[in-house]
Amino acid sequence: MKIEGRNSVLEALRSEEVTVNSLTCEKGRSDSVTALARQQGVKITFVDKSVLDKMCPDGKHQGYVAEVTDFHYCEVEDILSAEHPFVVVLDGLSDPHNFGSIIRVCECAGVDGIIIGKNRQVAVTDTVVRVSAGAASHVRIARVTNVHAAIKQLQQAGVWVYALDMDGQEITSARLTGAVALVVGGEGSGISPYTKKCCDGVVSLKLKGKVNSLNASVACGIALYEALRQRG
Amino acid sequence: MKIEGRNSVLEALRSEEVTVNSLTCEKGRSDSVTALARQQGVKITFVDKSVLDKMCPDGKHQGYVAEVTDFHYCEVEDILSAEHPFVVVLDGLSDPHNFGSIIRVCECAGVDGIIIGKNRQVAVTDTVVRVSAGAASHVRIARVTNVHAAIKQLQQAGVWVYALDMDGQEITSARLTGAVALVVGGEGSGISPYTKKCCDGVVSLKLKGKVNSLNASVACGIALYEALRQRG
Repeated sequence: MKIEGRNSVLEALRSEEVTVNSLTCEKGRSDSVTALARQQGVKITFVDKSVLDKMCPDGKHQGYVAEVTDFHYCEVEDILSAEHPFVVVLDGLSDPHNFGSIIRVCECAGVDGIIIGKNRQVAVTDTVVRVSAGAASHVRIARVTNVHAAIKQLQQAGVWVYALDMDGQEITSARLTGAVALVVGGEGSGISPYTKKCCDGVVSLKLKGKVNSLNASVACGIALYEALRQRG
Repeated sequence: MKIEGRNSVLEALRSEEVTVNSLTCEKGRSDSVTALARQQGVKITFVDKSVLDKMCPDGKHQGYVAEVTDFHYCEVEDILSAEHPFVVVLDGLSDPHNFGSIIRVCECAGVDGIIIGKNRQVAVTDTVVRVSAGAASHVRIARVTNVHAAIKQLQQAGVWVYALDMDGQEITSARLTGAVALVVGGEGSGISPYTKKCCDGVVSLKLKGKVNSLNASVACGIALYEALRQRG
């Protein structure tokens, strides 16, 4: 769906109901709209006014056109309504293919919900939905302003929160039954140090190679299935 | 690397030493070169003679230009030289991203080698090497004419061969220690019925969702790490 005009685009960026996939701006614009889009990791393309005029023949774009998806996010409370919540938290994932692939494996593993941040994190865009192969319609996803506050909320509800990173206890020796959340970091940078500090523990996958570089969705899948094995 | 001329391209397609990434042909060509390229799943682009003349200023292309990677494949025997071989066999994988991602997780899991077929299977192209994030240099990969003969060879060497598919015993209850091979099928079609019949057993991942569609590399990663857990 296409949204045009400065205020409409700004509202879409602020909205809980829609996700901005991409933003097309008139060259030279640099304001709260472009800043918010950047903060949310939205791809921005700067073009001549004539290009925008062609995209919106009614001429009401005011220099801004956004492509949005109206994916319905849930609340963290909805995820916590499960008896023994099994949750995935994504911290700074930027690749829509990885996100789509993670949604797929979460669906297969019976995860109760995924929590993503609003900043430095790809949202549920059209590409994510497509890569998820239909799974995005069957997994609850909550989009929160503050991932750390969401982790705190999980902990207060009795969920044990593990970070998936390199320097933790081996995952097969960690207790992954009951109410458990797994925090998975971005492709390049991994989990941020502060996010990691918020967690109750750190779990790691055994690595036996020289390169030892696991794709985020593969690592997440392996960890979820170890949890599934323990949960019986 | 670029290879030009009918015979050179044909040799490259037949060679064990190089992998043809893509083939550019003069429009209208349809012969043993294009047939072999098609059989190997090589992407073919048909262009006007003038385009080929531009690609090869010395004019010796004879209507054929191939882009090749000189990746060094090993022999199945090299993989079998490990004490308790831990092997992955790929049956008809067509997506280079999935293949690269599988090489990555094989490297992390300490797999002794990967066996791929020559037909209906993406080879180690430049894209595969790039996606593997360096892991392609550290995992032995054998490319065989006949996957079924290779499975037989593994079995004769005492390797227990499992197919990873939907209708087998749950993988956590299968014995994955000792000399073990895991056969992983292509993205769309899965393992071919005949390949499956050649295997000693079928293992499956537990699926708890509605869509239950796992990416080939994620599924392979989960299975390998279950094996790794058992192998201690």
